[in-house]
Amino acid sequence: MIRVAKTPSETITERKDEILNQIDSSSNKFVEQLQAFCRQPSVSAQNLGLAETAELVSKFLKETGFTVEQFSPSKGPPIVFAELSSKTGRRTLVFYNHYDVQPVEPVELWKNPPFSAIVEDGRVYARGASDNKGNIASRLSAINAFLKVTGTVPCNIKWVIEGEEEIGSPHFSEFITRYKERLTGDSAIWEFGGLDYEDRPLVTLGLKGMLYVEFRVQTALKDSHSARAAVVENPAWRLVRMLDTITDEDGRIMIEGWYDDVKPFTQEELEVIRAMPLEEHSIRDELGVKNFLYGLTGFEFKKAFYGNPTANIAGIWSGYTGPGHKTVLPSVAQAKMDFRLVPNQDPVKLAGKLKQHLVRHGFADVEVGLQAENPAARTPIDAPIAKIAARAGREVFRKEPVTLVTSAASGPMHYFTNILGLPTVAIGCNHAKSNTHAPNENQRIDVFVQGSKWIARVIEEFAKQA
Amino acid sequence: MIRVAKTPSETITERKDEILNQIDSSSNKFVEQLQAFCRQPSVSAQNLGLAETAELVSKFLKETGFTVEQFSPSKGPPIVFAELSSKTGRRTLVFYNHYDVQPVEPVELWKNPPFSAIVEDGRVYARGASDNKGNIASRLSAINAFLKVTGTVPCNIKWVIEGEEEIGSPHFSEFITRYKERLTGDSAIWEFGGLDYEDRPLVTLGLKGMLYVEFRVQTALKDSHSARAAVVENPAWRLVRMLDTITDEDGRIMIEGWYDDVKPFTQEELEVIRAMPLEEHSIRDELGVKNFLYGLTGFEFKKAFYGNPTANIAGIWSGYTGPGHKTVLPSVAQAKMDFRLVPNQDPVKLAGKLKQHLVRHGFADVEVGLQAENPAARTPIDAPIAKIAARAGREVFRKEPVTLVTSAASGPMHYFTNILGLPTVAIGCNHAKSNTHAPNENQRIDVFVQGSKWIARVIEEFAKQA
Repeated sequence: MIRVAKTPSETITERKDEILNQIDSSSNKFVEQLQAFCRQPSVSAQNLGLAETAELVSKFLKETGFTVEQFSPSKGPPIVFAELSSKTGRRTLVFYNHYDVQPVEPVELWKNPPFSAIVEDGRVYARGASDNKGNIASRLSAINAFLKVTGTVPCNIKWVIEGEEEIGSPHFSEFITRYKERLTGDSAIWEFGGLDYEDRPLVTLGLKGMLYVEFRVQTALKDSHSARAAVVENPAWRLVRMLDTITDEDGRIMIEGWYDDVKPFTQEELEVIRAMPLEEHSIRDELGVKNFLYGLTGFEFKKAFYGNPTANIAGIWSGYTGPGHKTVLPSVAQAKMDFRLVPNQDPVKLAGKLKQHLVRHGFADVEVGLQAENPAARTPIDAPIAKIAARAGREVFRKEPVTLVTSAASGPMHYFTNILGLPTVAIGCNHAKSNTHAPNENQRIDVFVQGSKWIARVIEEFAKQA
Repeated sequence: MIRVAKTPSETITERKDEILNQIDSSSNKFVEQLQAFCRQPSVSAQNLGLAETAELVSKFLKETGFTVEQFSPSKGPPIVFAELSSKTGRRTLVFYNHYDVQPVEPVELWKNPPFSAIVEDGRVYARGASDNKGNIASRLSAINAFLKVTGTVPCNIKWVIEGEEEIGSPHFSEFITRYKERLTGDSAIWEFGGLDYEDRPLVTLGLKGMLYVEFRVQTALKDSHSARAAVVENPAWRLVRMLDTITDEDGRIMIEGWYDDVKPFTQEELEVIRAMPLEEHSIRDELGVKNFLYGLTGFEFKKAFYGNPTANIAGIWSGYTGPGHKTVLPSVAQAKMDFRLVPNQDPVKLAGKLKQHLVRHGFADVEVGLQAENPAARTPIDAPIAKIAARAGREVFRKEPVTLVTSAASGPMHYFTNILGLPTVAIGCNHAKSNTHAPNENQRIDVFVQGSKWIARVIEEFAKQA
């Protein structure tokens, strides 16, 4: 059968459909890959299975066609770096993902074992299914489709997959220092992204920063009978009093100078925020919350959600926490706090302010362990990659995409935007109801497949740019 | 061989030595009984092994010669009631003990498994070895000696052994109501007592009361990503703020009217307190504490230790408490508090004041679970049983005994002093360094044997009284 010659644009269109069809037809294989990936635990906070998971993700990358190396930082698990050169395009897209996951606790709230990766109701249920193994497998599926259909990718792909994102990427700077010269590129795709509560595709252009600290108060060598509470100081009281100086009753941070360097939203950013859909009701329904802090609602809710620095008690513990009653005077009390930061706030400077605050309020004896620090990151609203991501999202999901000036979450994006100079967007295959960081985390399989298509369309359109 | 008749007082003296010798010669048997007793876990806070332990203690009592019955309250484990009539004496002494123990957590701080009851350095190491199984076995040894040497006990013994003392005796009032008529007697011996840090025998004449509460704050249906901390209230913050209203920075209780009904020490009590040895340095050394609350020292330290109501955080927990870092916004925060009360403070009334305090400070949403309540108890300094206990302690330990107006600890003694009208003293075989309620609890075997002798001498002298 003789085929009629086609114009270049027709070829692209036909190829495009072939690629999207290829993603559909290989979806079972990549869902199975995701399940295998999830069954390998990789809890960075507990140093669980990290090297094994780095091996597994390297294997997946090699099988797809990447050249893979593992960078070993001074401490911590390997960072996987993979490259795939294009035979046809000259531009370079950099992917950032992470293979580590959050702890599974409280494990009793999971319907299925957290690493069983059981498929139910069209979802893969597992810790890490959505954050972030789903995105890795979904991107592999997109790249696999290009290779299967065209024998190459339309642009060069560089891919960084680290193993400590969930604990604040403490060794990622070592990797950036060593690989800076090789990490040249034109744009970057961040680890997460997907659909909001209304199934609209989200294009996120920034992240909050993070300062994570652990407090420890010890007032005696050992626990004792609480009859002694009449004369011996209780560290839990001391921790409670110290914490109560950090925020006021509305949640505003009372550490002197905390807000000094905060860069307010630009007028353009405020316009985008105004256009952003309101997550207020979805969060209200999901969490059963009647009122938000300060009575926030509408535009003010959105501005606060995306623009406010936060001070969150992520954990607190002391004494007897089992069932029934025990009359113990504890010797140690501890708390974990995450402070989320906005652009221009420097986590190192703020850690200093926190310590000064403790001294000023008479809590110099409280030990402060700094566990992680990342500044915030922002990509300009008019960056070409932002527009490509939005257009491709509209095309794949047939819904008007939503551009987010920033996420309320955190990560080491500033290395990409500020140090490598890569305009970076967060898009992917997640869904707002995927229980990220919570029990029964899951990955919707339909969004997993559509997310592959979204990435494929972005790669193709990005490659076409001058 | 013909024995020369002896005068009654010679007979008693000789018999006395025979009884004390009998305690020595059967000590191995009763240490083994204590080990068997300790190897049966009986954690009331965790409803662990209680019925089995009630059976075991009943068996020990029957083997010694007691008539035993078990009272089953509406809820909770059996209360063991045992009687042994005297063939020679008409007076009645009532013993109170408990077969339940504190939880073993934190289990990682124990040198040996908490229920292994291993003997090391002349001590039995086990949860409950000192509090309170040691005292039960030690008393059984004393009574066994009377029966072996004289074929009877010199006075009637009634013995109450409950299984919920460590959780505030929530069902003990049911027992008292039912057995009130049968619990007539002349005096009572409380569950604990023994030697202080200087090996001086302690005679304790009272207990503080107790109000034990559990607080619970829930602000969302489930935990979520801490990025939401910008808008969603964190229950740990709310719990911290609520707790910080309960005491001031010196530990003084700020609940309105908390001190209204406090009955101060009488002049006589203050004199006894002045004569009491100072535990200050021993506590300082044991706990490695540099300063006490309010800078307390000397007489003021003692007055505070025995006379101050307390508000102790026995446990607090929320969010992620494992290793490393997790960025979670918790949905629930909880705390356990024990409030120790002094004579004339009514726990039911104070529970009401606590709830009013929460409402007044805007914390009406904080759930308050009342877990236990006991008023304080005091026996007058000049009660005959107090003097007998002190004299016998001096004789057995060859040290000047110390009379304590009250312990800083709590228990349901008020049923005996206030309801049954029994002058009650706390004496026994414990030692100040026995790690009661803490890891590596232990019973010194030498004090266990001497404690038996102390009880035996008290029984004998008590029986002689008109």
